[in-house]
Amino acid sequence: MMNDKMVHIHNTALEKQSDDHFHHLGITKNSTDLPKMFGDVKFLCMGGSMQRMKNYAEMFAKELGISMSDNLSTTDRYSMYKTGQVLWVNHGIGAPSASIVIIELIKLLHYANAKDVVAIRLGTSGGIGVPPGTLVLTNGALNGELHDKYVQCIMGKKILRASVFDAEVYHQLYNVAHQLQLPVQIGKTLSANDFYEEQTRMDGAFCEYTEEEKFAFLNHLHKLGVRNIEMESLGFAALFNRANIKAAVICVALLDRLKNDQVLLGHNDLNEFEMRIFKVISAYIKQQLKLY
Amino acid sequence: MMNDKMVHIHNTALEKQSDDHFHHLGITKNSTDLPKMFGDVKFLCMGGSMQRMKNYAEMFAKELGISMSDNLSTTDRYSMYKTGQVLWVNHGIGAPSASIVIIELIKLLHYANAKDVVAIRLGTSGGIGVPPGTLVLTNGALNGELHDKYVQCIMGKKILRASVFDAEVYHQLYNVAHQLQLPVQIGKTLSANDFYEEQTRMDGAFCEYTEEEKFAFLNHLHKLGVRNIEMESLGFAALFNRANIKAAVICVALLDRLKNDQVLLGHNDLNEFEMRIFKVISAYIKQQLKLY
Repeated sequence: MMNDKMVHIHNTALEKQSDDHFHHLGITKNSTDLPKMFGDVKFLCMGGSMQRMKNYAEMFAKELGISMSDNLSTTDRYSMYKTGQVLWVNHGIGAPSASIVIIELIKLLHYANAKDVVAIRLGTSGGIGVPPGTLVLTNGALNGELHDKYVQCIMGKKILRASVFDAEVYHQLYNVAHQLQLPVQIGKTLSANDFYEEQTRMDGAFCEYTEEEKFAFLNHLHKLGVRNIEMESLGFAALFNRANIKAAVICVALLDRLKNDQVLLGHNDLNEFEMRIFKVISAYIKQQLKLY
Repeated sequence: MMNDKMVHIHNTALEKQSDDHFHHLGITKNSTDLPKMFGDVKFLCMGGSMQRMKNYAEMFAKELGISMSDNLSTTDRYSMYKTGQVLWVNHGIGAPSASIVIIELIKLLHYANAKDVVAIRLGTSGGIGVPPGTLVLTNGALNGELHDKYVQCIMGKKILRASVFDAEVYHQLYNVAHQLQLPVQIGKTLSANDFYEEQTRMDGAFCEYTEEEKFAFLNHLHKLGVRNIEMESLGFAALFNRANIKAAVICVALLDRLKNDQVLLGHNDLNEFEMRIFKVISAYIKQQLKLY
């Protein structure tokens, strides 16, 4: 039943396993009371950087006057903090890195009997025709070939997965950002597999295109409705979709790629931009969970 | 000239930049004397985990009685330690994550006028028909579609890149492992984009194949000469090849996928297996640099 509120897995083999070791989180199903520890989770907030996710968790706990868990991951591959009904987990860089911890979180939340879970990626990105500091809410993602499908190769064969961003969630996030008077747009996201050539940057070690070709491509993206470029949203939504978890992605643009390639923000500007994401997420979660 | 010993870039636009900010290492070209700091680098040792790379760097410095630098990366995305002529850098999980720091290292070593550089990935992997603890030296890598090409999408178009592992280096590493009486094989590597479905594991959140299909696929890989599965080697070699840097990959198999899916090693076994890689690399570098 895809209409219920539980977290779905699709793997009958898993049910036969006596235990389940989440290799990259360093947790074992049987050594932890998962329903007690994670059964109440409603929001799964994820982003690339460990430090940023930890900062967000700390600020959220402080703002609400609630406690923050220790790092619940025992490996150095990922970190995970819990503040009430919210989990803060980093996913590293790129869809392959994100896919591992997402799969382990889906299993964990499934075993925990968590219900009505929303997963939100909190990211940094390059903007396309938007000023630095603008928040972009993804309403669709494209891969490097400009198709809106997440590609997996299973037993040598390409499988295309739909990647759907929950319209209710991104509209709610949009409204919160608007109320906070932060610059915000809804648009498509190019989900690339590298930072340099796939994003047509001219400041990598290799560059086989001219500046003219670069701008033609970026303007083409803009015409397709693309407002930012990052590296995880396509796989992020595709994996959570299969698990009956709603997915949304909010990114701050660190630069406008129609202007330049290098991120030249000072530390304070970067902090202020990353704080914009936190302000929106924090206000949104408080609104949704009625935490006033 | 591709026959000289320098680190190559292919980007005329870069020469015109007055400065270059390595966004993910947190270093600026002009704020650092790159030739002085990195001009002597001969070996670039990389692996997924930050902690493992730091441990290796510490052990290497101790063994040789030389000093180890502080973490030379100022971001939390990657870490970098220098011990004499050897750099130890983590690349995170998956080719997209690795590609970013590899591009920044290529630029850094190019600006530093480093010569004759060898890049070696030190990884963990699933084995195919080899006992846990076996060291596998990659002599060719396959992508998820079982082609030996690294795929990039540039301006919407697929580009296939050759990915060559230096035969002299992997034979030298093989000989060192053999002399140390460690189990070692030379074979192909499946370089997948996720840990679960692309590696036909049956312990992920999703599994759309039967156990029979899984074993048929893994046996097919074995017949193709594949001896392990990991997530970075294809992109690792392809990027370094373009920069005139020799590439090699040595991985330890944590399990035999023809036997099971879950990594069930205890902490001590894992440490001992990871130490095997260090023993080989350390002996190899000492031999090459005549550090006795």
